[in-house]
Amino acid sequence: MSQIKNYIREHEARFLEDLFELIRIPSVSAKSEHKPDMQRCAEYWRDHLKKLGVQTVEIYQTAGNPIVFGHYEKDPSKPTILVYGHYDVMPPEPLELWKSEPFEPEVRDGHIWARGADDDKGQSMIQIKGFETALALGLVECNVKFLLEGEEEIGSTHLEQFCREHLEMLRAENIIVSDTSMVSAETPSLTTGLRGLAYWQIEVTGANHDLHSGHFGGAVANPINELCKLIAQVQDKDGRITIPHFYDDVVPLSDEERAMIAKIPFSEEEYKKFLDIDDLFGEVGYHTLERNSCRPSFDVCGIWGGYQGEGSKTVLPSKAYAKVSCRLVANQDHHKISQAFIDYIESIAPKYVRVKVTPMHGGEAYLCPIDLPAYQAAEEAVAVAFGKRPLAVRRGGSIPIIAAFERVFGVKTILMGFGLESNAIHSPNENMPLDIFYKGIEAVAEFYKIYPKR
Amino acid sequence: MSQIKNYIREHEARFLEDLFELIRIPSVSAKSEHKPDMQRCAEYWRDHLKKLGVQTVEIYQTAGNPIVFGHYEKDPSKPTILVYGHYDVMPPEPLELWKSEPFEPEVRDGHIWARGADDDKGQSMIQIKGFETALALGLVECNVKFLLEGEEEIGSTHLEQFCREHLEMLRAENIIVSDTSMVSAETPSLTTGLRGLAYWQIEVTGANHDLHSGHFGGAVANPINELCKLIAQVQDKDGRITIPHFYDDVVPLSDEERAMIAKIPFSEEEYKKFLDIDDLFGEVGYHTLERNSCRPSFDVCGIWGGYQGEGSKTVLPSKAYAKVSCRLVANQDHHKISQAFIDYIESIAPKYVRVKVTPMHGGEAYLCPIDLPAYQAAEEAVAVAFGKRPLAVRRGGSIPIIAAFERVFGVKTILMGFGLESNAIHSPNENMPLDIFYKGIEAVAEFYKIYPKR
Repeated sequence: MSQIKNYIREHEARFLEDLFELIRIPSVSAKSEHKPDMQRCAEYWRDHLKKLGVQTVEIYQTAGNPIVFGHYEKDPSKPTILVYGHYDVMPPEPLELWKSEPFEPEVRDGHIWARGADDDKGQSMIQIKGFETALALGLVECNVKFLLEGEEEIGSTHLEQFCREHLEMLRAENIIVSDTSMVSAETPSLTTGLRGLAYWQIEVTGANHDLHSGHFGGAVANPINELCKLIAQVQDKDGRITIPHFYDDVVPLSDEERAMIAKIPFSEEEYKKFLDIDDLFGEVGYHTLERNSCRPSFDVCGIWGGYQGEGSKTVLPSKAYAKVSCRLVANQDHHKISQAFIDYIESIAPKYVRVKVTPMHGGEAYLCPIDLPAYQAAEEAVAVAFGKRPLAVRRGGSIPIIAAFERVFGVKTILMGFGLESNAIHSPNENMPLDIFYKGIEAVAEFYKIYPKR
Repeated sequence: MSQIKNYIREHEARFLEDLFELIRIPSVSAKSEHKPDMQRCAEYWRDHLKKLGVQTVEIYQTAGNPIVFGHYEKDPSKPTILVYGHYDVMPPEPLELWKSEPFEPEVRDGHIWARGADDDKGQSMIQIKGFETALALGLVECNVKFLLEGEEEIGSTHLEQFCREHLEMLRAENIIVSDTSMVSAETPSLTTGLRGLAYWQIEVTGANHDLHSGHFGGAVANPINELCKLIAQVQDKDGRITIPHFYDDVVPLSDEERAMIAKIPFSEEEYKKFLDIDDLFGEVGYHTLERNSCRPSFDVCGIWGGYQGEGSKTVLPSKAYAKVSCRLVANQDHHKISQAFIDYIESIAPKYVRVKVTPMHGGEAYLCPIDLPAYQAAEEAVAVAFGKRPLAVRRGGSIPIIAAFERVFGVKTILMGFGLESNAIHSPNENMPLDIFYKGIEAVAEFYKIYPKR
């Protein structure tokens, strides 16, 4: 048995107890009543890092929740790794669906059950305990900075500003984050891409008041009819987005990447069964796993207008609204896409209605090159811990702060996440398999061992 | 001053108070919670008619809302007029746009403001007070039957069956109805045509639960996107409806009719200004006044799905809904059209979503000949009250029961309506000018005076 495995086995009970202590603090960032719990979490991490031997640890107050910064100084001439995580969690509701108390962790059937067991208390603890293991075994040959925030679940509102204000303090060669998931327990993977986002609200106005559809129908444009026509023109029958210049900056998928995606175990039949749909729909020429992660998408997230109640009211409404979004991929500038959409909708909007498009928010996509030494160290480390070389997989979701790190620091992040889809993050009965928790710690310790050699 | 004018002036305050009492009952037939208000309206009319001297008045319960029938028996050898009206109203939503409470009528700037001020509480009250005036002055030389229902705004669901079951009781030489509008206060008119209606609800289902638009967007069809595409395919760029066989039975407009329509005072600029729109949209080749009364139309009356709240939630919803309707014209069979629409939507619906089209209600169009004695009596009566001969005009609205009356009784209805476009029926701030209310009462009283001579 490796000395790393050995150390983890010897200390596994304490590792678990440390995680449970953190989980018991109900740090729900969406609810202001939990403000004191945010401070308690920050203090927990400060004291914990100090105890491990991290020389400098400070809590920084922000206009939102506190940020913990720690700096383990090995040698100024050596490279620096920045470890990011978050201590806030999603609300536990609906409570009645939990089989055990969300903030009273318990081990059942080989899993840790609790809010935050994975996202991100469990995964941050994997990072910290992996560091502790490597440190105890004299394997840490780089400087390590720690950045733990309490607003990830509400948009990391104050983090980018904090980074800009502490550029030198946070400077690192690479950032490492455990807050994503793997393909499955049997198919370990590293996340090499995240999609970006652009989001708009469309408001279509016809007449200045609701009209009788009998008296005006046929003579005056209906804003819902027109909104539908506009939305129908954003995507063609092949599932391609028709906004001019939309694909201009999209980096085409390489044959290599497609070959890697083809290796991901996937059953279209099971996928359709899980969703209860008869058929899939997406951009012609791409596989489902490419469509939902490596290609941009256009979705109406909400639409409303006119009468939505019981029965049948005839009316020619004055207004119609939609909330629409695009998931973006690497190299698409969300500001540019946002403007291109506005320009396109304005160009196709007929003059018999008034159309207003309001950009809501956006974020860049993120792509991590797999030839990066830090990526390769992570890949090797996961291979040692999980006994299988991890796939490099792009994911369809968005973590805006990862693109922000690149923007602010000019540094790539290694997304070394150990989550599983069955961990039910953001849902009742969030959990983390115990063996994944310990394998994750092992992978992180291995990373510290391998990284300096790369 | 005529004795009719005189009587109205003497009793105008009481006429108004009687109307207000009726308006204060929030009889919204679309919402089942208002069921008790329907009974209250029926009782209001029963008691009111009895007080006026109508000998027989009964409330008939139906599977839906109660129907009030009254019979003023003058002389069995004389002709009989059946007066029809409805006491139910449209929902008042959106409430925030009302300047005063919808069910607390108030007089402001010479108008009555309230839901039902026109449609049809105000107009039914014009009929009843016109009858009262004529009766008080000894001018009623015919038998008068009253039929007041509470389901007009939801399709008069149970009235046709009721008529069939009470054929003898309801028998009359002519039916008279005040539930339509005039060209304007300066251009009084009688309605000689009504459009029919077909109404459907469309439900589009994608996955069996709301999905994360990051993890699934691009790979799984979005039911809102698809609903919009379906709706966009129902009308072409020339404003023509694309449902196969939709126009098959439409009687083309004759040159004579088009010439009559051309006589109606109409300014496109004022129309646009009133509606606050930059341009009109309708079927190519037809004038606005033809489009909104003599040609069929397609309108989405309501649409909803996904997130409609504040801010920007990303979601790939499971469901999307729309309420859609067509106004139909003379000779279009609404059952046939209803099925043609369902067939068309099913034929264009993609198999990656499930589409369900539910027919809601419908009704035939109606046409009234202008050489009918009762029509001519109404024409003369309106001329006396408004000082101007009324134009004969086809209208775009639908009163399905009018076509049903013809089908069941074989009798034509005189559409002696006193509404104005600016009365905003079915909309916030519904209103009725006070002077029109009193002139309407005068016209109805005059009708009773003139009718026996025709």
